[in-house]
Amino acid sequence: MASVRNLLVFRQLFHKETSTYTYLLACKQTMKAVLIDPVLDCVERDLKLLRELGVQLVYGINTHVHADHITGTGKLKQALPDCKSVLGSKSGGRADIFVDQSERLKFGNLMLECRSTPGHTNGCTTFVLHDRAMAFTGDALLVRGCGRTDFQQGSPSTLYESVHSQILSLPKHYKLYPAHDYKGFSVTTVEEELAHNTRLTKSKEEFIKIMDNLNLPYPKRIDESLPANLICGVTDPVSS
Amino acid sequence: MASVRNLLVFRQLFHKETSTYTYLLACKQTMKAVLIDPVLDCVERDLKLLRELGVQLVYGINTHVHADHITGTGKLKQALPDCKSVLGSKSGGRADIFVDQSERLKFGNLMLECRSTPGHTNGCTTFVLHDRAMAFTGDALLVRGCGRTDFQQGSPSTLYESVHSQILSLPKHYKLYPAHDYKGFSVTTVEEELAHNTRLTKSKEEFIKIMDNLNLPYPKRIDESLPANLICGVTDPVSS
Ligand SMILES: [Fe+2]
Ligand SMILES: [Fe+2]
Repeated sequence: MASVRNLLVFRQLFHKETSTYTYLLACKQTMKAVLIDPVLDCVERDLKLLRELGVQLVYGINTHVHADHITGTGKLKQALPDCKSVLGSKSGGRADIFVDQSERLKFGNLMLECRSTPGHTNGCTTFVLHDRAMAFTGDALLVRGCGRTDFQQGSPSTLYESVHSQILSLPKHYKLYPAHDYKGFSVTTVEEELAHNTRLTKSKEEFIKIMDNLNLPYPKRIDESLPANLICGVTDPVSS
Repeated sequence: MASVRNLLVFRQLFHKETSTYTYLLACKQTMKAVLIDPVLDCVERDLKLLRELGVQLVYGINTHVHADHITGTGKLKQALPDCKSVLGSKSGGRADIFVDQSERLKFGNLMLECRSTPGHTNGCTTFVLHDRAMAFTGDALLVRGCGRTDFQQGSPSTLYESVHSQILSLPKHYKLYPAHDYKGFSVTTVEEELAHNTRLTKSKEEFIKIMDNLNLPYPKRIDESLPANLICGVTDPVSS
């Protein structure tokens, strides 16, 4: 009998220009697949990989409306009309399927639990694959860090509550996969972040002070990214 | 009883400038660790991670004498004097431990089998962790490709033999981890490469023709990298 562990095809993919991770998850029994945070610039690569692995994309999931790159969901849907786009219901964006706290996304014999983790944006969602003790945290939790909170409805107080109640409350051995990493890390665990996250190990008050004083530059691609991502990267059929 | 699967701490680390992957493997029972292909520029990051994970580095392994970046082995040894450098015996370089075909490198309760895979360089070694069905292929096999064969004793004919007899002969489900990837892939499998490798699925004659006509530019950092890597990145104590 195949164990649950063996049911998963898993690939972590990287977009170097924006240091974005895209995750391919597929059920080996049914060959149904999802992509979490696909990047527009990488859609051809991802389509080729899906074909080579012989899997069928059912969901193109965005953890949130990204400000630094354009999502690949729209282009993926054009190529694969059976694929549905997924986005958190509080995102203010457009998508085929909106998810809320505790909802479940099934693909084949695998299932993702949706956890609302606002604070970086209102619609941020963390997707948990309990069968494999993995969680995809978007920009809510990064390796030893977290996403910024100074635009897109950002709130350090909300983010602190989200991460502690929805992510770092998972069992200690759960692996956490971020939407970005800028130093070459690919994964972390609940245990590691509880001990070593440079921001989230602080008190809430200290965390808010840190986040309010980051003085980060305005994201380079935000003006093209936000409008496109609010409609899940769906390009007008006439203009595309 | 802990299964073998649970014995491993595994981290894939990335150096963006040279698209190099470094692998951290550690035995959870003994906390003994190895790094495969550490990069000089990332040694501080890697030392911090080793400390945070509470593991003790016993081997700094180089799959071969790299031409595109300087190995971190020397600097790691300065910081962690108990760590030994490891290199293939045919490499022509200097190291604490030289490995040959079928030798075994033990760290805690885990073990790497060494497989000589010359062709990119003479000393190229693939390290296989049979307990977890993983192999670290250096530049012998890359995702959908392979390392170049036009300098450093390179030989397309030798590389073709190496990859087919030592890597693609592993069981189909074995995961293959390359030393580099330039398109954002992080891992592949024997099955995938047998079906989709753009070069190694060809006949030996076609493969040789492809490799002899790549016309690649001379590696940017080869003149500083080779001399340093031939001595495992050990800098002179006086000058360091
Ligand atoms: Fe974001
Ligand atoms: Fe190389």
